[in-house]
This record gives sequence, C-alpha cells and structure tokens, in this order.
Amino acid sequence: MKYIFVSHGDLAKSILGSAQMIVGEQSDAKAFGLYPTDDIGGLKDQIKQAIEEFGGKEDIICFTDLFSGSPFNAVVALMGDYPIRHITGMNLPMVLEAFMIRMNDEMTAEDISTKLLSQAPETFIDVNNYLGVNLEE
Amino acid sequence: MKYIFVSHGDLAKSILGSAQMIVGEQSDAKAFGLYPTDDIGGLKDQIKQAIEEFGGKEDIICFTDLFSGSPFNAVVALMGDYPIRHITGMNLPMVLEAFMIRMNDEMTAEDISTKLLSQAPETFIDVNNYLGVNLEE
Repeated sequence: MKYIFVSHGDLAKSILGSAQMIVGEQSDAKAFGLYPTDDIGGLKDQIKQAIEEFGGKEDIICFTDLFSGSPFNAVVALMGDYPIRHITGMNLPMVLEAFMIRMNDEMTAEDISTKLLSQAPETFIDVNNYLGVNLEE
Repeated sequence: MKYIFVSHGDLAKSILGSAQMIVGEQSDAKAFGLYPTDDIGGLKDQIKQAIEEFGGKEDIICFTDLFSGSPFNAVVALMGDYPIRHITGMNLPMVLEAFMIRMNDEMTAEDISTKLLSQAPETFIDVNNYLGVNLEE
C-alpha cells in the first residue's frame, strides 16, 4: 500500500515527518505542499508523477488536509484518471494508524480507508472532559 | 481567545502556517514542537512560558497532535497549574474553525472546545464515497 499526503504549505511534509518520528522511516510514502507562489497545475503534476511512480493502481491512498481546498481539488482531478482512494481531513492519529494497518497485506485500499474513517472520530478528544478537569470560571 | 499548538516535530508549526495561508496572519497563536534531541521538560517549559505570556487564564486552548504522546503529556502536566482547555487530535479543518469561531467574543474556551469537538467528526471524509467514485477492482 502506498500513501501520498497533500496539503497547503508544509503540513503534509510535517505530518509525514512527525509520524516517522514515532513509527520510524517509511517507504512508499510521499508528501507535497501547495505554496503561495505555486500554481495548482504544478501541484497536480507532482502528484500525478508520484502516482505514476507508485504504479498508478488501486493500492494508492491520497490524504489531503481540507475538504474543497486547492490540494483537495488537485487530487480530485486525478481520481478520474487513476483508481486511487482519497481521504480528506487527515490528522496524525489517522496517519499513524495508516502506517500500522498497511502491515496487513490482505487489506485493500478500500478496506483501509473504511477502517481509518470509522476510527477517526475517536481520535479527537476533549482532554478536560476525559481527565475530569472541568474548570469553573 | 489564545491558541497554543503542540506536536511531535514540525507538525504544530506547519498546521499554524498552513491555516494562516488560508485565513491570514493570526495573533495570539503560538506553536511548539518536540524534536528527537529535545527533552520533554524543555518543551513543557516553552509551553508554560507561552501560557504565562498569554496571561495564564481561562481563555487559552492548547491543541495537541496525538493522545498520550509526549507533547500531549507536556500539556496535561500544565493543566493542573493553569485553567487551560486541551483538545487532542487536531487537524487543519479544526484549526481553521478555531480561528473563525474566536471572532465571536462571547464564546468561552469551553464553548469553543465543545463546538469544535462536535463538528470534528464531519471533517473526515471518504472522498470516493462522497463523490460516488467507487472503483471496482
């Protein structure tokens, strides 16, 4: 399974870097950012090249930062040409779980997407409530 | 309302930078990262100093990258000393919404946390399902 992370600015590169601080160096993972001086076509070309290098098949999942942003749209534009999966709203717990889960060779990209999405809501936690630290003003 | 972002590596700084690419430069927002050569006490001291600079009151929300990671633990260690709120699992849609929502002066940190957490699950989207691009293998 191969992963491509795409975002505004450095977020995609940093989420991959931070994940690798925890789970170790990862192969088959690339990250791309859109910067203020870039045009969206250039970003799309970079992602397309990465998809090609990864073989352009069903075993590619793209993670983007934000629904309907330009990085999201660049990936959507490629979904017609390649049988990739695309999840948006990535956070670090999701990315870590994606690296863990792909150690199971039998899971398809669709299986992995479904599992990540089902677990994702639990990765957001109100820590005050969780710890019972409900402060009065 | 004041925000502090804390993560492994550059993720916190990048999520703030990427958010600012979209909503413009933000005051009252700081970001800190834990790097492989750092000790956790140093990170905790940086966060503590930021909380002090922000006045140390109820109008501070800390966002961390991952439940029970070291950055998370550094913030938890400060929750006993300061009446801060703490949300973990941050993603870009949550951070953007946090910057939008604080324009309403009447919302407390608890109001904002509750609202962000209630909206957060919807920020994760399976784009193939959303667009009806369900690829057969």
